[in-house]
Order: sequence, then C-alpha cells, then structure tokens
Amino acid sequence: MTTLESLMTPFLVLDKDKVETNIARLRGRLGTTLRPHLKTAKSVEVARMLFDDGVGPITVSTLAEAEAFAQQGFTDILYAVGIAPDKLDRVAALRERGVDLVVLVDSVEQADAVAAKRVPALIEVDCDGHRGGVVPDDPAIVDIARSLQDGLRGVLTHAGESYYADSPSALAAAAENERRCAVQVAEFLRAEGFQSPMVSVGSTPTAHFAEDLTGVTEVRAGNFVFFDLVMVGIGVCEIQDLAMTVVTTVIGHRPDKGWILTDGGWMATSRDRGTARQRVDQGYGLVADLDGALFADLLMTEASQEHGILSVRPGSTAELPDIPVGTRLRILPNHACATAAQHDQYQVTKGSRMIESVWPRVRGW
Amino acid sequence: MTTLESLMTPFLVLDKDKVETNIARLRGRLGTTLRPHLKTAKSVEVARMLFDDGVGPITVSTLAEAEAFAQQGFTDILYAVGIAPDKLDRVAALRERGVDLVVLVDSVEQADAVAAKRVPALIEVDCDGHRGGVVPDDPAIVDIARSLQDGLRGVLTHAGESYYADSPSALAAAAENERRCAVQVAEFLRAEGFQSPMVSVGSTPTAHFAEDLTGVTEVRAGNFVFFDLVMVGIGVCEIQDLAMTVVTTVIGHRPDKGWILTDGGWMATSRDRGTARQRVDQGYGLVADLDGALFADLLMTEASQEHGILSVRPGSTAELPDIPVGTRLRILPNHACATAAQHDQYQVTKGSRMIESVWPRVRGW
Repeated sequence: MTTLESLMTPFLVLDKDKVETNIARLRGRLGTTLRPHLKTAKSVEVARMLFDDGVGPITVSTLAEAEAFAQQGFTDILYAVGIAPDKLDRVAALRERGVDLVVLVDSVEQADAVAAKRVPALIEVDCDGHRGGVVPDDPAIVDIARSLQDGLRGVLTHAGESYYADSPSALAAAAENERRCAVQVAEFLRAEGFQSPMVSVGSTPTAHFAEDLTGVTEVRAGNFVFFDLVMVGIGVCEIQDLAMTVVTTVIGHRPDKGWILTDGGWMATSRDRGTARQRVDQGYGLVADLDGALFADLLMTEASQEHGILSVRPGSTAELPDIPVGTRLRILPNHACATAAQHDQYQVTKGSRMIESVWPRVRGW
Repeated sequence: MTTLESLMTPFLVLDKDKVETNIARLRGRLGTTLRPHLKTAKSVEVARMLFDDGVGPITVSTLAEAEAFAQQGFTDILYAVGIAPDKLDRVAALRERGVDLVVLVDSVEQADAVAAKRVPALIEVDCDGHRGGVVPDDPAIVDIARSLQDGLRGVLTHAGESYYADSPSALAAAAENERRCAVQVAEFLRAEGFQSPMVSVGSTPTAHFAEDLTGVTEVRAGNFVFFDLVMVGIGVCEIQDLAMTVVTTVIGHRPDKGWILTDGGWMATSRDRGTARQRVDQGYGLVADLDGALFADLLMTEASQEHGILSVRPGSTAELPDIPVGTRLRILPNHACATAAQHDQYQVTKGSRMIESVWPRVRGW
C-alpha cells in the first residue's frame, strides 16, 4: 500500500473528496452550461469527475490536451488560445475524427486561415484589457465575422482582470462586465445578419460571483477544481477547499536564520508567486502537516531548484515550530495551474494518508 | 526534415555549437577538476558532450538524475541536496550497482542515518548565508564528522550569493570567499584527525571568476552549459552565448496597447523572473527572430499560461516592430534551469534552422 509516508518526496497530492466538493459547488450555483477549462487539471480522470461518461463540453489550452481528451471520448472541445495558422492542419485532423473542435480568432488574418480549412471559430472579445481579443466596438468584428462565413460560432470573452479583484462586489461587477460585453457583441453580430449561437464567458472568480447570466450560453472556469492561495486571496474559496498540495520532507535547520529547509524547491512548487500582488503575500505557499493542519504563520518563503526555505511570516510573532529532519509537510500552492505543471502525475487520496490511485497529466503542446 | 519552421510551437531549442563553446570556455580556464551540475541540462546527451565516454565526475539534484546518468555509465556522482533519510535505501541501491554516489549532510541526525547505511557523504558548509550548511566555525562539524566515521569524504560549499553580485571584483571576491571557507573547514577537519579528500566548491558565476583554487579539488557549475539572461546580468556571459531559447508564434496584436501576443506563455518559459532583481529587468525574456537577431528593446513583458505578451521595454523610445501573425520568434530566457524544466525535450540545432536531433530530459524525482 502506497501512502503519503511511503512515497519519495516531493510529490503532488490530490484530495478527491475536495475536488468533488469544488465541482458540486460550482455546478450548484450555475444556471447555465459549464464548459470547464481543463488546463489546470490536464487529467482525463478529473475530466471524468466533471462529466461521467459525457462528451463535454470542455475547454483546453493546448492541442495536446484536445487530442488526449478526444482519445477518451470527449467530442465537444473549445481550444481557447488564439489560433496560430500553422496549427490548423492538426485541428482539422481532429475534426475529421468527429471531434467538434472550435478555435478562437481576433483578426481577419486568422479568420481567413480558419475559413480556408473549414474550421469553426469564436471571435475573442476583450472585456477588460487583460490580453487578446477585439474591443467590443471594434469595426473589425464585422470583417472577422464575414471572413469566418458559416464557420462563425459566436463570441468568447474572459474576465482576466477579475484575478485582481478582491471583494464580492468587485467580483460581481467583473462578472457583469464580462457578461454584458459578450452579449453586446453577440447581439451586434446578430443585428448585422450573422449567426452567434455561442456566448462563452468565464473565469473561476467571475463564475463564482456572477449574479445574472442572461444571454450567456456557457461559462468557462478551470482553477475551481483544485483552487489555490490566489483564489483564497481573491475571496473565491477558503484554505480548506484547496484540493492539491505538494508533499516535501524536512532536510535541515538553520535556527540562526529562523529557517527550516525542505527537499521541495521551485521544481516542485513552480516559481509562481501570485499572492505577492495580493493583500496577504503567502510566499511560495502555506505549510501544513500531512493531515492538513496548518502551522501558524509558517510560509515557504524562498525556493531554489530543489530546496525550500520555510520561515515565519514577516511581522508575525509566531515561533518557528520544531519540526525534525525527515518530517513530511504539505505546501499549499499559490497557483494550482503552475504547480501542477511541475509534475507528471497526481497521487490521489480520499481524506486519508492512503494513495488510492495515480492519475497522469497531459504534457507538452 | 524537421526545422524550426515546421515543428509546432512552443518548443525548446538548443544550439549545440554554443553548448560546445560554453563547455570549452570553462574547461579552458579551470586548473582543477570540473564536476558539472547536470540539474540544468538533465540530459544524457549534454552529459556526453561534457565527458565523451567518461564516468564523471558529475553532480545531480535528484535521485532520478542519478539513476538516469548511472544507466548511461556514469559512476562518479554527487547528489548535492541535503539528504532526506528515507531516500537512503534508493542511494544504497545505486551504490550496490557500483555507482559511487556521494550525498550531502549538515546535521548529526543525517550523518547518523547515512553512516547506518554505509553511504559516503560530504559535509555541507555555508559560506555566505544563502541556504543550508553548517557555518565554518560551528562546533557541530566535529560531531558530524565523527558520526560519518570513514564515510566522510570531505566538504562542499556553494556561493549562492554570487548570483547577486554583478562586477568582476565582487565575483572574484565571492569565489575567493567560497574557496577559503571550504579549505578552512577541510583543514580544520584534518587537524582534528579526520580525512577530507574532497574540497568541492562552485557556482557558474564563481567558476568563471575564481582567480585561485588552491586547496580545492573540484569545481561544480551547471548553468554555464546553456547560460541565460541572469548570467548576462551578472556579467558571466554575453547574450550571444545563450544556447537555449523557446520558439513561439505570433498569434495576435493589440496596437492600442502596444502588444504583440504569442503562443508561448509561462508554460513555455516558466514563471522565473530572475532578472527582476538585477539592474536590467528583462521581463520574461528578450525576443529574437528565428536566426537569433534581437529586436531592439522588445521584451516578453507578461505571461499567462499559454499567452506571451511582447512589448517595448519600459522607458525605451523603440517602436513596436511590425511582426505578422504566424511569425516565429525566439524567447531568450531569464533562467535556463527553470525554462528547460517546462519541457520534456530539446530540439537540437547546429547554427541553422534544421533540427538535427531530439534529446529527452530527465523528469521527476
């Protein structure tokens, strides 16, 4: 029997019960279709927790994900990164296998390339200046729609700036802005004589705070299956909702410096320091024992490739706990997508220390 | 024939000629044994460029690396992360196969565990307050040496703070401090009646600036095989020495924001922003065309999982270049170790756009 104590550290652990709770919570509040973004989990087994034996709808961030999920029977897939024209042959090959893979464009150049390969697409709309997309009043929208011809499936937007909100009212406002922006462009397209059946919005923060989804046909969210400290900082979840942790072992002490050293460095946690820009900076992560009990104000404050440094939160009066060499600890990550990407598989538990299964992750592009 | 133009982006490219030049440069200046740290390359083929058909000596950061290199005939291996006692059975198993795998300790607890398994060890000495190790005048050194008994192989130190130096004189001073510290503890141990045949020092910055290595028996360095923008910032190499880049494709433009978007986000480059603390912040990396010609003052300034944002360096008067959708670009990374870790293999070129071979990376722990 493999347990959290027998496997060699560092490794990535998933608490299946928490994943189930997180999925049920979002499904319970949404009144519309959920098209989960599988870029966080990159796992067929997590996808099956979301859908049982369904065929989707799902969102992916790479064609490697699209191919892996298609192989497992998912046929309703949105590739939500603006398409590079030379990826279209690979997209078309999946479509020929019966997968309804839809891509994303925000320029006439892309729309022409997509239409030439008879691939359907959504027009990416920028609702808050975060990344790509056409702004809602951009006259290019009609040109893109015209280029796509009958391949136009609708519009997509993503409230990327919602990750910088941290009050329920700001999150509800970000969600309403995301909805309004997508619906406005879809209605504009329809008024201009184009079809726009899909109106796709979403991010984990806005999906949990949207108060009205009128006109929206689907909501994308990905991080919510695991959650992380950035989501705690935004106010979307509580620390106990975090389903994914990294198990490390204490390898040394520097009492003169107030440090405990572990064998989990940035190779195990990633370099992501998403909470650094939040009100509470959680370093490289909070520290808990194997059963999940947090050490008060103990953070992973520094990381080199294979070393983690734990110390007391700056400004705290907490004492550095006495944790002997060989003790195993859990690190609660800043950003689940980035931490998971450092690992090839999940060790899956159900509340106890026993590892019930090992789930591989899709890698590469 | 696979080329930099035919392979789907993003992917990691290694210029074999530059790796050869970088290796020859360090070998040419060192008057003592080089024990390269393979944590950067994690590649059997790169190890073979360093050693032809030799057996080492090499340094590793994980037991997975030790096992992979042992499989390829390397038998002189140092595992340079403080040992977690429950990894010792795996160490002993490699030693039984004839691999002289040496571990690292900085406490009596570890030394006792190591001696019980008859595994040889170095004592880690802290020369500059960077991470683990005993300080040179710590009375525990004698206790550790006594616990190790005849398994004591010597001492090791690492000038971790040299990564924060940025002048030739500061680097030479860091190298001399590293040397003096290691030699001092080795001589102390000998005076106390212990053996200390190995005196191991090194980091890529100090290895390139050490002026005297008297008393040192081997130098470790790892990053130098590829180099990166952090090393440029420290002054160890020039931009044209960087042997490893990430190839991405332009997928969009936001002229209103001064952005070019690519399909290479932090999943392709890592979240490492090592140059953020240097005099010149290079964002997520510099941008070059496929032939390596840099765009003036163009940086990858932001990253999400699968999107890179390129824009002009803050404060620069350079114009945003006109780079059409579909154009392939190289991103020069902040930190080669972290960027390489995001990929499963290297696409290997020799100066041209033709990919001559694909070299896998060792993954996991």
